[in-house]
Amino acid sequence: MKISIERGALLKAVSQAQSVVERRNTIPILANVLIEAEGDQVQFRATDLDIEVLDKAPAQVERAGSTTVAATTLHEIVRKLPDGALVTLNADSAAGRLTVEAGRSNFSLATLPKEDFPVMASSEYETNFTANAAVLRRLFDKSKFAISTEETRYYLNGVYMHVADGENGKALRCVATDGHRLARIDAELPEGAADMAGVIVPRKTVGELRKLLDDDEMDIAVSVSETKVRFATPDITLTSKVIDGTFPDYTRVIPQANTRRMEVDASEFAHAVDRVATVSSERSRAVKLQLEEDRLILSVNAPDSGAAEEELAVAYGDERLEIGFNAKYLLEIASQVDRENAVFLFNSSGDPTLMREGNDQSAVYVVMPMRV
Amino acid sequence: MKISIERGALLKAVSQAQSVVERRNTIPILANVLIEAEGDQVQFRATDLDIEVLDKAPAQVERAGSTTVAATTLHEIVRKLPDGALVTLNADSAAGRLTVEAGRSNFSLATLPKEDFPVMASSEYETNFTANAAVLRRLFDKSKFAISTEETRYYLNGVYMHVADGENGKALRCVATDGHRLARIDAELPEGAADMAGVIVPRKTVGELRKLLDDDEMDIAVSVSETKVRFATPDITLTSKVIDGTFPDYTRVIPQANTRRMEVDASEFAHAVDRVATVSSERSRAVKLQLEEDRLILSVNAPDSGAAEEELAVAYGDERLEIGFNAKYLLEIASQVDRENAVFLFNSSGDPTLMREGNDQSAVYVVMPMRV
Repeated sequence: MKISIERGALLKAVSQAQSVVERRNTIPILANVLIEAEGDQVQFRATDLDIEVLDKAPAQVERAGSTTVAATTLHEIVRKLPDGALVTLNADSAAGRLTVEAGRSNFSLATLPKEDFPVMASSEYETNFTANAAVLRRLFDKSKFAISTEETRYYLNGVYMHVADGENGKALRCVATDGHRLARIDAELPEGAADMAGVIVPRKTVGELRKLLDDDEMDIAVSVSETKVRFATPDITLTSKVIDGTFPDYTRVIPQANTRRMEVDASEFAHAVDRVATVSSERSRAVKLQLEEDRLILSVNAPDSGAAEEELAVAYGDERLEIGFNAKYLLEIASQVDRENAVFLFNSSGDPTLMREGNDQSAVYVVMPMRV
Repeated sequence: MKISIERGALLKAVSQAQSVVERRNTIPILANVLIEAEGDQVQFRATDLDIEVLDKAPAQVERAGSTTVAATTLHEIVRKLPDGALVTLNADSAAGRLTVEAGRSNFSLATLPKEDFPVMASSEYETNFTANAAVLRRLFDKSKFAISTEETRYYLNGVYMHVADGENGKALRCVATDGHRLARIDAELPEGAADMAGVIVPRKTVGELRKLLDDDEMDIAVSVSETKVRFATPDITLTSKVIDGTFPDYTRVIPQANTRRMEVDASEFAHAVDRVATVSSERSRAVKLQLEEDRLILSVNAPDSGAAEEELAVAYGDERLEIGFNAKYLLEIASQVDRENAVFLFNSSGDPTLMREGNDQSAVYVVMPMRV
């Protein structure tokens, strides 16, 4: 294999690939990226056996072929090369070396045979649809904070993407929860997605997917089977196993009968929560909310270090209520609010509380109270 | 004590103070900042028993007095208050509480009696002089990278500030070394500094001092005794014990007879070193320099991962030379060069190498070679 490629194009392709590679690896080949050159194109493939990323870039292919080389080393080298450089990759399979040349820089990297590289088996995908990058970004960005990190509840270690009954008919829905808080985000159902099997997209895949979604105008081809999910742009294909488990029935958790409505400026609320939480000890981080007519008093009482109190003007017309929350959870859901006002719907101090952005039902958050 | 103070002024004073406080403390009072209000001024004092910082800020003092309160908590609170807020600090010594009020925010923090606070004993300083902030910044910034982290060689854990014979007569000189590399930086001797005792300024003090030196126009009052050093601006006084030890005779280490002169673009050199070092294993990080007439070839050979080579155009007229260095050390000294060109003076592959910025003798670096 011998190719020439512009440094910028190479860096972009290698960056995406190397980020999937796990730093600590017992299987040497998994540290490598598979480079395949043919026609006027080069492909970079990396995997951790659960996720596979395939990047394509245009290149001048002098000699078609393929090899594998340490992904992070190649990435570091390309990153440090001067902008605009033309890079030549030349694989000598007899010597087991890949030469990287640019200007007066010359690198020779150890390779491993491409036959050892575990290419993910191709699958049949029952569902194929196209979704706009901005739509997918909203679905995953607003739900991922609630993903559980508890390994024993592995079925909560991802975002549950499925088809559900939304406000205006069928919706493409993402849900994540760790038992303490829950996010339920809806988007218009894309054409062709109606029969999609519900899948739990693992946390790491959500992170890798995010890098494909920066361009608002981009259309993403989504393919779903019962065991795999694939997201593809013209240049990048991200394939991932889905979590083999059953996502719990989250609908039971979402309160339907909460009637005590408080509307508050989301940013003011978040800042106030952040301030009063300063005095609380790291472990409990409990913030008390006292609701009176059009007034919210946030307070924290930490016996060792001190106490804090802050008053906010809110819209609230129901009877007095006292309820406590974990400060971190409150901050996280408040920071999801894109528009000015957050609407909280309370029931009692022992019941889960619902939050949404204004009257928009397409993004709903639930947070469990804690005793204060 | 009761005072009102603008949030910006309070934040600045508390920031500087709290950074001296050690996060992990067995003595509770050391986590606190001593606040003293009198006249139209408030003082914030913090210490780790080796360094003391005293910050002054103008304030409206309603009731003079003093108290101590957790430095990091107070800092966090003030940081999170809205810009421009007027903050009231009200100490209730009977209740052992300090109230912090701003707008609708209200905090009550636990205090400790000011009598328990270990104020650093005042000292006689034999030497007092004034130095420009930019001059001190250069002296310490260019030397601190070479400070040793080896605790057994505690006398190398700081910058040795002393009076020495420089290029143009007596100079104020800062030297740091860890045995592998050395930095020797000179500045014009300020008036009144001629009789200064040489002192080893500890690493942490150098870090804290740096925050006082951002304003080029500022004059810093420096006071030195055999056991302490003090740096003061009109608002901030930083007092520190110096390291109780003898700095080794570094002059022996600085080669005088190195004649093989190489001149190279410092930035090109640093980038090339950085690139070739990519392939080397973390532990050794050895870069080989091969010098020929007006050519420098940098190379790294790491048996497991690969090899790298890069050629640079340099000015060199002496005989061929091969010499190896730790890549990190080369990068660090190259990044000290402010002007375009770095001048290296070599002797043999086993001898220390000298580097300076062009022909400027006021900043000299020495780096030990390693076998490659």
